[in-house]
Amino acid sequence: MKILVINCGSSSLKYQLLDMNTECVLATGVIERIGERMGTVTQISNPQKWPDAKDTEDIPILSHKAAMRIMVKKLTGNEWGVIDSLNEIDALGHRIVQGADEFSQPVLITKDVIKSIRNLVPLAPLHNPAHLTGIETAMELFPDTPAVAVFDTEFHQTMPPKAFMYPLPMELYTSLKIRRYGFHGTSHKYVTKAAADHLDKTVDNTSLITIHLGNGCSMAAVKNGKCVDTTMGLTPLAGLMMGTRCGDIDPAIYAFLAKNRGLGVNEINTMLNTQSGLVGICGQSDMRDIHTARESGNTDAELAFEMFTYRVKKTIGSYLAILGSVDAIVFTAGIGENDAYTRAAVCDGLDHLGISLDNTKNDKRKNGTRKIHAQGSAIDILIVPTNEELEIALATQKTVYSERLHIIKRNRPLQKSTE
Amino acid sequence: MKILVINCGSSSLKYQLLDMNTECVLATGVIERIGERMGTVTQISNPQKWPDAKDTEDIPILSHKAAMRIMVKKLTGNEWGVIDSLNEIDALGHRIVQGADEFSQPVLITKDVIKSIRNLVPLAPLHNPAHLTGIETAMELFPDTPAVAVFDTEFHQTMPPKAFMYPLPMELYTSLKIRRYGFHGTSHKYVTKAAADHLDKTVDNTSLITIHLGNGCSMAAVKNGKCVDTTMGLTPLAGLMMGTRCGDIDPAIYAFLAKNRGLGVNEINTMLNTQSGLVGICGQSDMRDIHTARESGNTDAELAFEMFTYRVKKTIGSYLAILGSVDAIVFTAGIGENDAYTRAAVCDGLDHLGISLDNTKNDKRKNGTRKIHAQGSAIDILIVPTNEELEIALATQKTVYSERLHIIKRNRPLQKSTE
Repeated sequence: MKILVINCGSSSLKYQLLDMNTECVLATGVIERIGERMGTVTQISNPQKWPDAKDTEDIPILSHKAAMRIMVKKLTGNEWGVIDSLNEIDALGHRIVQGADEFSQPVLITKDVIKSIRNLVPLAPLHNPAHLTGIETAMELFPDTPAVAVFDTEFHQTMPPKAFMYPLPMELYTSLKIRRYGFHGTSHKYVTKAAADHLDKTVDNTSLITIHLGNGCSMAAVKNGKCVDTTMGLTPLAGLMMGTRCGDIDPAIYAFLAKNRGLGVNEINTMLNTQSGLVGICGQSDMRDIHTARESGNTDAELAFEMFTYRVKKTIGSYLAILGSVDAIVFTAGIGENDAYTRAAVCDGLDHLGISLDNTKNDKRKNGTRKIHAQGSAIDILIVPTNEELEIALATQKTVYSERLHIIKRNRPLQKSTE
Repeated sequence: MKILVINCGSSSLKYQLLDMNTECVLATGVIERIGERMGTVTQISNPQKWPDAKDTEDIPILSHKAAMRIMVKKLTGNEWGVIDSLNEIDALGHRIVQGADEFSQPVLITKDVIKSIRNLVPLAPLHNPAHLTGIETAMELFPDTPAVAVFDTEFHQTMPPKAFMYPLPMELYTSLKIRRYGFHGTSHKYVTKAAADHLDKTVDNTSLITIHLGNGCSMAAVKNGKCVDTTMGLTPLAGLMMGTRCGDIDPAIYAFLAKNRGLGVNEINTMLNTQSGLVGICGQSDMRDIHTARESGNTDAELAFEMFTYRVKKTIGSYLAILGSVDAIVFTAGIGENDAYTRAAVCDGLDHLGISLDNTKNDKRKNGTRKIHAQGSAIDILIVPTNEELEIALATQKTVYSERLHIIKRNRPLQKSTE
């Protein structure tokens, strides 16, 4: 079975074709600057074989439909193609940021599903419209291929009300659906399963703190495979400090800035999303650049690093308080997987809570899931490389299979009853 | 030595006269609705002797000056008076909400101090102007009495930058002083000292988590007598869920409400400060009413209680992570001192972190500082009644003494050198 994973943004299209028999990536591509005068297409074919070989082309890409046509051409073409025809693609998996409380699992895309995703646009004004464009364009190009929607919010739908409700007038929840949704769910779900595997446990018998530190950062408290709390909120602005996002701050800062700077709500929102976080404190958002600056004695970079890791440390403590005993804390995503300094600073001084890092293991650059805690650490410390595309493909495969089974089951008794 | 503690709000004046030899309250009073058509004056004289006897009077109170004149009359009057003349008052202690990073200790009020408090008005637009009115009016009535300013923010001035900085553009800190200040400092300081006493330790050798749960709620992580982190922020809106305040939420909710409800920044700010928290979820802000509602099966009240205690529990965990070993967690203020349900829910399930409540001790209604943890609890659990007025009076006394000592010391060498 081959599955094409599609992540459609407002001016970009990311895709990945996977062979589900081997769980190998056949091709992965990015099409950027859709609708601008000049766009870019990049595809890496058979990355396991040729990781450094990529096909990059600058061409004008007028629309998402044009982008998808280019994707099809790249996937089936003579030079970089990996399949002969689109018929080889058995299913499409669409990444959808906001499923709110309408979707607690992946679903086969129908007219009703599209309608629901459209109804949720106010909760994700930048993302869901782009996803809908992706879904509808794909339906034209792949009219007979089943398509599944996989939601970033889905994994967090198991949170109890005490964790997802905000202390705001209740009416804002009932009428506007203002609550904590959480994001990065596909990543937290994937690393939860991978960590349980690595611990030789069933996922419904683990207690984990998953720490996704990339461009965006979020954490989840996961009890028996179910998310019980997470740091992102109504939007992906909340929670931890991130590359350019502030995370949690005194909400009154909004009013303070409006009054003392005469800024409008949208200006403030843009500032909090794009000019804050690491970049706000030290002018850099890439942790590697921050380390370089720290080494040359840049105190702002040092402060940014301290603030960033301090907030992760505090959240580990708060999740220990709500989870009871914990089997492992799990680092994932760009910074989580690759930055030994961050992991060391986060874990520093947590020995009294049963979290002790092995510095040698932590410093070693390696691939794959691995343990980096010291002998005798009551709580394991793991690095688990995340794979959101594979998780979306697995969810798509499962949904398509169970839907087929459902159809077969539905048809059988009908036949029986007419016998 | 007799000290008069003054807490001057925008339309109210609270005062307390203390005899510092005995640390006893001679009189405590509240004057409300200053500037309205009809105001109220209430004084309790010698509350230790007659706790239930109070003098209440409804009269128009045109200004803060009029209010202070009434206070003087009540303190020296025939019927309820406790002193013969104002000359018996040795010093005044003014409670000031916002001292920002200008004041890290109480100070004798001078023209420069008044100027500084005035400069900080943008950071406390509701409070500091009222305090200034109180200071200036008192200067007219007590021209020869030394007066000391004691700041709510002062105790938190020892926080390190990683705890007080927000992940916002650095320029907002350097030019607008946007940072975490924290409030309730007088209470956190008082209970820190009282808890250390009760633990038979010196205050600079303790590690404490202080939990102030009243109308407003805040927590502090206190290492060796110094605050290293606290929940309130630039304003007292941040942190824990409170009676009517939301505490930390996704800051993007501001933009969401502006867009989807057409609300202005000030309307949103008012909503978050006065219609949120406990009252937002269940319509009640008094924890006693919430328990009554819970008992009659009100699910909103149950949710409000769960959310409230859940956030305190999470903060205990995060402070355990940053403090290392902790000697005690300390409950104080209205809810913290009196509500056994809240304390039980907060501590529930924290045994794995060394926090075990003794339910019998917790349920017993008693006065005074006391231990309520179970035998074998690695971390003590204390109830410490707070006393902000006494703390202000003690700080005032100390400041006046050390100022006099300073003057004496300054004069001596001068005299010597002229000998």
